[in-house]
Amino acid sequence: MTGAGEEMHALVERLYPLRRSITGDGVRATLDIVGEHLPLEVHEVPTGTPVLDWTVPQEWNVRDAYVADASGRRVVDLAASALHVLGYSVPVAARMPLSELRGHLHTLPDQPSLVPYRTSYYKPEWGFCLAQDVLDALPDGEYEVRIDSTLADGHLTYAEHVVPGEVEEEVLVSCHVCHPALANDNMAGVAVAVFLARELAERKPHHTYRFLFAPGTIGAITWLARNRERVGRVAHGLVLACAGDPGSVTYKRSRRGDAGIDRVLRHVLAASGRPHEIREFTPYGYDERQFCSPGFDLPVGSLTRTPYAEYPEYHTSADDPDFVSPAALADTLAVCREAFAVLDRNRRYVSLSPYGEPQLGRRGLYDALGGRSDAKQAQMAMLWVLNLADGGHDLLDVAERSGLPFDAIADAADALAGAGLLKA
Amino acid sequence: MTGAGEEMHALVERLYPLRRSITGDGVRATLDIVGEHLPLEVHEVPTGTPVLDWTVPQEWNVRDAYVADASGRRVVDLAASALHVLGYSVPVAARMPLSELRGHLHTLPDQPSLVPYRTSYYKPEWGFCLAQDVLDALPDGEYEVRIDSTLADGHLTYAEHVVPGEVEEEVLVSCHVCHPALANDNMAGVAVAVFLARELAERKPHHTYRFLFAPGTIGAITWLARNRERVGRVAHGLVLACAGDPGSVTYKRSRRGDAGIDRVLRHVLAASGRPHEIREFTPYGYDERQFCSPGFDLPVGSLTRTPYAEYPEYHTSADDPDFVSPAALADTLAVCREAFAVLDRNRRYVSLSPYGEPQLGRRGLYDALGGRSDAKQAQMAMLWVLNLADGGHDLLDVAERSGLPFDAIADAADALAGAGLLKA
Amino acid sequence: MTGAGEEMHALVERLYPLRRSITGDGVRATLDIVGEHLPLEVHEVPTGTPVLDWTVPQEWNVRDAYVADASGRRVVDLAASALHVLGYSVPVAARMPLSELRGHLHTLPDQPSLVPYRTSYYKPEWGFCLAQDVLDALPDGEYEVRIDSTLADGHLTYAEHVVPGEVEEEVLVSCHVCHPALANDNMAGVAVAVFLARELAERKPHHTYRFLFAPGTIGAITWLARNRERVGRVAHGLVLACAGDPGSVTYKRSRRGDAGIDRVLRHVLAASGRPHEIREFTPYGYDERQFCSPGFDLPVGSLTRTPYAEYPEYHTSADDPDFVSPAALADTLAVCREAFAVLDRNRRYVSLSPYGEPQLGRRGLYDALGGRSDAKQAQMAMLWVLNLADGGHDLLDVAERSGLPFDAIADAADALAGAGLLKA
Repeated sequence: MTGAGEEMHALVERLYPLRRSITGDGVRATLDIVGEHLPLEVHEVPTGTPVLDWTVPQEWNVRDAYVADASGRRVVDLAASALHVLGYSVPVAARMPLSELRGHLHTLPDQPSLVPYRTSYYKPEWGFCLAQDVLDALPDGEYEVRIDSTLADGHLTYAEHVVPGEVEEEVLVSCHVCHPALANDNMAGVAVAVFLARELAERKPHHTYRFLFAPGTIGAITWLARNRERVGRVAHGLVLACAGDPGSVTYKRSRRGDAGIDRVLRHVLAASGRPHEIREFTPYGYDERQFCSPGFDLPVGSLTRTPYAEYPEYHTSADDPDFVSPAALADTLAVCREAFAVLDRNRRYVSLSPYGEPQLGRRGLYDALGGRSDAKQAQMAMLWVLNLADGGHDLLDVAERSGLPFDAIADAADALAGAGLLKA
Repeated sequence: MTGAGEEMHALVERLYPLRRSITGDGVRATLDIVGEHLPLEVHEVPTGTPVLDWTVPQEWNVRDAYVADASGRRVVDLAASALHVLGYSVPVAARMPLSELRGHLHTLPDQPSLVPYRTSYYKPEWGFCLAQDVLDALPDGEYEVRIDSTLADGHLTYAEHVVPGEVEEEVLVSCHVCHPALANDNMAGVAVAVFLARELAERKPHHTYRFLFAPGTIGAITWLARNRERVGRVAHGLVLACAGDPGSVTYKRSRRGDAGIDRVLRHVLAASGRPHEIREFTPYGYDERQFCSPGFDLPVGSLTRTPYAEYPEYHTSADDPDFVSPAALADTLAVCREAFAVLDRNRRYVSLSPYGEPQLGRRGLYDALGGRSDAKQAQMAMLWVLNLADGGHDLLDVAERSGLPFDAIADAADALAGAGLLKA
Repeated sequence: MTGAGEEMHALVERLYPLRRSITGDGVRATLDIVGEHLPLEVHEVPTGTPVLDWTVPQEWNVRDAYVADASGRRVVDLAASALHVLGYSVPVAARMPLSELRGHLHTLPDQPSLVPYRTSYYKPEWGFCLAQDVLDALPDGEYEVRIDSTLADGHLTYAEHVVPGEVEEEVLVSCHVCHPALANDNMAGVAVAVFLARELAERKPHHTYRFLFAPGTIGAITWLARNRERVGRVAHGLVLACAGDPGSVTYKRSRRGDAGIDRVLRHVLAASGRPHEIREFTPYGYDERQFCSPGFDLPVGSLTRTPYAEYPEYHTSADDPDFVSPAALADTLAVCREAFAVLDRNRRYVSLSPYGEPQLGRRGLYDALGGRSDAKQAQMAMLWVLNLADGGHDLLDVAERSGLPFDAIADAADALAGAGLLKA
């Protein structure tokens, strides 16, 4: 596990500095690196394509951006951090006094040493993000500002990777790939998704697993628009974000509140003994907002460590690779692994011998010696599975109602199905 | 508000002494005074009219009633308080020793200085109510008793006032007008109803509001009998009683328990921060007993301050105008105002853009600058309304689930409906 | 009551020593004694009869069984206790060293002075049960072992007793009769059932009560198999076991969880003020396992004092008549009596005057004098019954919702039905 944690952290470090936005070459570069680990199907959707209520925007790329003082020294420089330019800034090349420039500078007065992350996707604007301390140290006078960006017809880029399963029903794992120079949000989610996909491929999973790497909001909307007829296949889903910070795990339920994925995460987190929090759905956060919009209402929850906007490093330059640890990444991966193991074994069975208990003894499934009071877990598990095998309870229900471990219940179901006593 | 409280208290004082019963001129005099504030439609229903399982009784009027001692001094006198005569006493004019008279005298041994309120509507009887202290001071000997009453065919009187709204669905506000010389029970309820009706008329309310001023039990039964085909219009209702005592507010749920009025009162009282109590329905109390009988099962709750029979002044001469305060009357009025404001704005919307989030930015409904974590309440309200605009949730549901103020939710819905994103 | 307790205890003492098993003469002797108290219909079902997933086994009888030492002294002797032979032991007559014999000896190392109860119904085996202390004292050397048993085609025996009621819907009371030389488990249950049946016969009960005395598991399965078309008549049921130990009462819900019997026991135990415990259904314990198998899913709960396997005397020689007290037996009987009294009076009524309150006064059902605040329990009960007489609530619901005693509610319903205001 430590091995996987270290590998995921190395991936985060490599992906971290890229100049991502909701479109452009930063996303492509990110997907290229992911593609070294997983075969990806990359989609390029042209600017202007109508997607649900939205339209694919122009593609934005930035090559250089700086503010230079009278001496030509770059006091703010994109080369130092992808955060320094306001996302989707229109090009600018001008000289202006600091007083005029201030209207284009974004800082965090309460966190004066940190650079904020800011964008202006849908309003033509240019700007720079910098530390308040840096701004405070700038003398009045004239500055040169230059943003060498292009905002032009192009494409929105996203990618999918599929791990085929025994059934067509899919588990969707989605993570956003649009944030520049932020580690926990969301290269950590990307790294966990990559390693999860690799692990799943090593076994033939029951469900088909679809991994989606797309820019936030517009990417999810684009995917939904292009897969509208196929979203019925999504039996379960998880939005992965903020997967590597020091906080404990938080699961946010789907809009349905009691979808299979909600029940599984609640069960697995409780059974694991991990400190964790389960939250009700809210229509804010990451792309669960789109998957759980009322027209789709997909059974998609969201797994993070510290949630959206609840840590001081959030959307600042302090969300860097040091903020993300191998152990936290490995722990998030383990939660996914445990949850998907339950999801893949969970079934709804019907007893083929529902009248009275079937005679387990003659099938070799029951202790021959009667009268003893230490009924074994495996036998109790069989009795529970048989008693609730009425088509109305799945194995997770049985585990919860019996208080027995899910694996004991699933093993019992396998034994009973093997003896011809159950059908799925 | 203090103004309204003082005005309501003045109305209580004026209405208080009248000789009300379930029929007769005391009710008419009460409605005449109410009619000075509100136009009333007064109904006179003849004695003998069958009303549901009941029959409109004979009309009772009393002109004089006293017990006089040997010297001719009136030791109990109707002129001093309308409580002194047993309601619906048959006429009597006789002389009798105290020992015989005692069988017709009603006192409160545990509250010896107070006069009780007693009636005998359905069993022919005569009697007087007086303080135990007064009775104890009466010397033995002969007394003259006289009740100059008439019990004869006549009418049962009740009145309605309607504030027309945008829709025909009605909110019924009902208060009983049959208790003589009791202030909190129920001239306080009458006063709050009068001022509520006047306030509602100043705005065009969404619902039509119907105010019913009727004698308890038989009055409500008569109204129900005469409006049997129209009770389906009652979308919500509130029985107002005991509206001015020093206690905090109590809301008693309708028989349904989760009717709109129940949800609104629960929400408004909780949101207001007032000390208050919510109680389950019981088939005892005021006219909610009739409105919530199983055949009608109307969504009618009951709002009081201290409930029915739970204060020592209840049904005694201590329930006088001093027991009722302007501040308490104003507070009860405020609760009604707040509740009806929610009731009138509450709607069930369906999103016209339910697939993904609609793009609020291009409609001017969303901040242009992305990345900031201080999502504003108005934007959160819009996201919540859109997410739950599936026809299965009303705005009150949205407010409760989001934890946002109802008004913020309703404002968001107005903005979204204005932008063509919702339909009611 | 003490009388019944003593009589039940005497019956336990008499039944206790018999050599019962799931078939054979011990069961017949048990039923003979029960038959002295109650007329029984005894059923004999031939070996080999298919019953649900099972087959009626061969009949087992044992005449003598012992282990004798070199001197001929019987160190283990069936004559001392029916527990000493492993149930369903095949015959054996042999000499062998202790080292070889040990494989056939069953003890309780943690309770070294007690003899365990053990069986081997479905695997041909022979053995003895004895105290660890006795075993430890046996010198090495050769022993004579002899079990004079027969395992041959015969019958499985069970019996029924019916107390006819006003309706065909049945209450099933079932207790297992297969355990040799154990008092609480289950001659205590048998004794309570016997006295319950006798009490019920003294009044004409509403329901028909069917008492089943059958060997555990295979007996219940046989009864179910032979009554498969008639189990729909079972409106309620109770498995009675462990009815006389010093612990407080435990009710284990039916698989349905909210069946009438579950609601009644919950109510009666709470109302009685007894210390008690209510447990959720589990598919382990006594014959509720069979009655509540998913194909039947009968509304059958289980009443015990200390449950199955939760007392140290369980399935040992310490479960003797001293472990069972007259007071505990009488208390279990009282719980059944109280529960069945509620079950028999519980009805679902519909008001014939559901619009407004009916006028109770003119029917002599209501106090004539109004204004008093001390509404009596009987009148409150009538108002509650009328208000909830909508066909959707039974009297138990009314009792629970009103907080009034069930008998007050049922009395009110009788009075109202008598006045023509309700129909069942």
